[in-house]
Amino acid sequence: MTDFHETTVRVRYAETDQMGVVYHANHYVWFEIGRTEMLRSAGINYKEMETRDDCFIVVVESSCRYLRPARYDDVLRIRTRITDAKPRILRFGYELLKDSDGELLATGETVHVICDKLGRPKSLPPRYRRLFGITNPGPDPTMN
Amino acid sequence: MTDFHETTVRVRYAETDQMGVVYHANHYVWFEIGRTEMLRSAGINYKEMETRDDCFIVVVESSCRYLRPARYDDVLRIRTRITDAKPRILRFGYELLKDSDGELLATGETVHVICDKLGRPKSLPPRYRRLFGITNPGPDPTMN
Amino acid sequence: MTDFHETTVRVRYAETDQMGVVYHANHYVWFEIGRTEMLRSAGINYKEMETRDDCFIVVVESSCRYLRPARYDDVLRIRTRITDAKPRILRFGYELLKDSDGELLATGETVHVICDKLGRPKSLPPRYRRLFGITNPGPDPTMN
Amino acid sequence: MTDFHETTVRVRYAETDQMGVVYHANHYVWFEIGRTEMLRSAGINYKEMETRDDCFIVVVESSCRYLRPARYDDVLRIRTRITDAKPRILRFGYELLKDSDGELLATGETVHVICDKLGRPKSLPPRYRRLFGITNPGPDPTMN
Repeated sequence: MTDFHETTVRVRYAETDQMGVVYHANHYVWFEIGRTEMLRSAGINYKEMETRDDCFIVVVESSCRYLRPARYDDVLRIRTRITDAKPRILRFGYELLKDSDGELLATGETVHVICDKLGRPKSLPPRYRRLFGITNPGPDPTMN
Repeated sequence: MTDFHETTVRVRYAETDQMGVVYHANHYVWFEIGRTEMLRSAGINYKEMETRDDCFIVVVESSCRYLRPARYDDVLRIRTRITDAKPRILRFGYELLKDSDGELLATGETVHVICDKLGRPKSLPPRYRRLFGITNPGPDPTMN
Repeated sequence: MTDFHETTVRVRYAETDQMGVVYHANHYVWFEIGRTEMLRSAGINYKEMETRDDCFIVVVESSCRYLRPARYDDVLRIRTRITDAKPRILRFGYELLKDSDGELLATGETVHVICDKLGRPKSLPPRYRRLFGITNPGPDPTMN
Repeated sequence: MTDFHETTVRVRYAETDQMGVVYHANHYVWFEIGRTEMLRSAGINYKEMETRDDCFIVVVESSCRYLRPARYDDVLRIRTRITDAKPRILRFGYELLKDSDGELLATGETVHVICDKLGRPKSLPPRYRRLFGITNPGPDPTMN
């Protein structure tokens, strides 16, 4: 997988609040778009990952630092990185930039465990390990 | 089921937009709360209706007239009525009032078909027909 | 303004619900995107319309018919039409199609009044009347 | 202000996603409700704080750890604490519990700066300092 991936979204009216800027919880929706599009660019269709391979990338931690407000109609660039990839845990980092001038608006991170449909932790199947760049996982310290 | 049912919600910051009032799509979320609470008051737990009886009340039409804006922190009274109940189709009407002074803010309607988990139309089981007040459905014109 | 305008959105995970399809209120968010992009294609930046011209396109009615479910990761085509344009009232019609095969998923309509920042109705400024194709409004029956 | 404050919300259908549990960004909306209700219980109406005193509690950091999924129709108890209060910075901690059995579902934190309507940092007015328990702020190290 490449070092980082970029995709853009345009801020929706529904995402603003009465402060005149984007409501802070929406950044996490954008981070998810960054994640999905990064996977897609690496040949991973997350929809199929769920339906065909019974692999759900479940969020166990999320965090965001808000540096500058995002505003209605802004085009935002979501820069996504995998900061850690293990057979059972994935960690993503995000930078949110205003596309017009490259101003950094927010940074964030999410941590995920791989689960099946019933929410039970599992390891990434070999095909996905390769796509996530987990080439030599060795003994998995998170295995029971 | 009684003539109408009332429940209240307090407007969340997340529900406002940069116009300083509630974003119009959120009214439909409140209508759904009105529906759920009306069912609950009639002895129907919608969660169990889905999980135990494989009955999903799927929205096929929705409409809303916005008379006055709803604002952050307002307590809203959702008045819900069943305007038509057939074994396969339910119709609900809504009035949204400002709880403090009874001002009417919006009216709405939703139409629903009963479906199973896979989205196939089905009839309400007898127990629910009784609770919805469908006492004598007669031949169902929507049956194939 | 052209007969109709099309833009696309990809369904977000956040827009789905536990029925496994898109939650019905989100269609209205997409209709708004269709509206905004139609205006943009006609040379109207809605953001500036609000900030520079103190013209808010306030929703007074909305409705939607749901024909087929929209699903996660689907690319949707929003086809937007102006179905009526008067100096004080705008009416838009929408069709929502699955981009991959053109299947019609939903149709909808919204009605809007033009207001200033304080929510007082006003007429569209001449520049916008032209862009909305209101060439000869004649006496405005909604004027006081 | 008391040590902690509790309020409850019921999970809405709109808050679930196709994994069958609550979409992770919604926890931040609940944290905000916890915050608002904690302020209200201490005699602070946040709506008036914005409109009358031009004091906006702007989120600059947010984080959440998801321990167990929240599910549709669950009643959740939001336990909110002020973990740090300075004239210009507020820090809140949250625990999210399932009301029926007290199971801890998530913990979180948000950090806020006080701003005016234009987004410029300012200090809390004396009245609010007292209510937030900032009795002897001393020299403010965050002042320029």
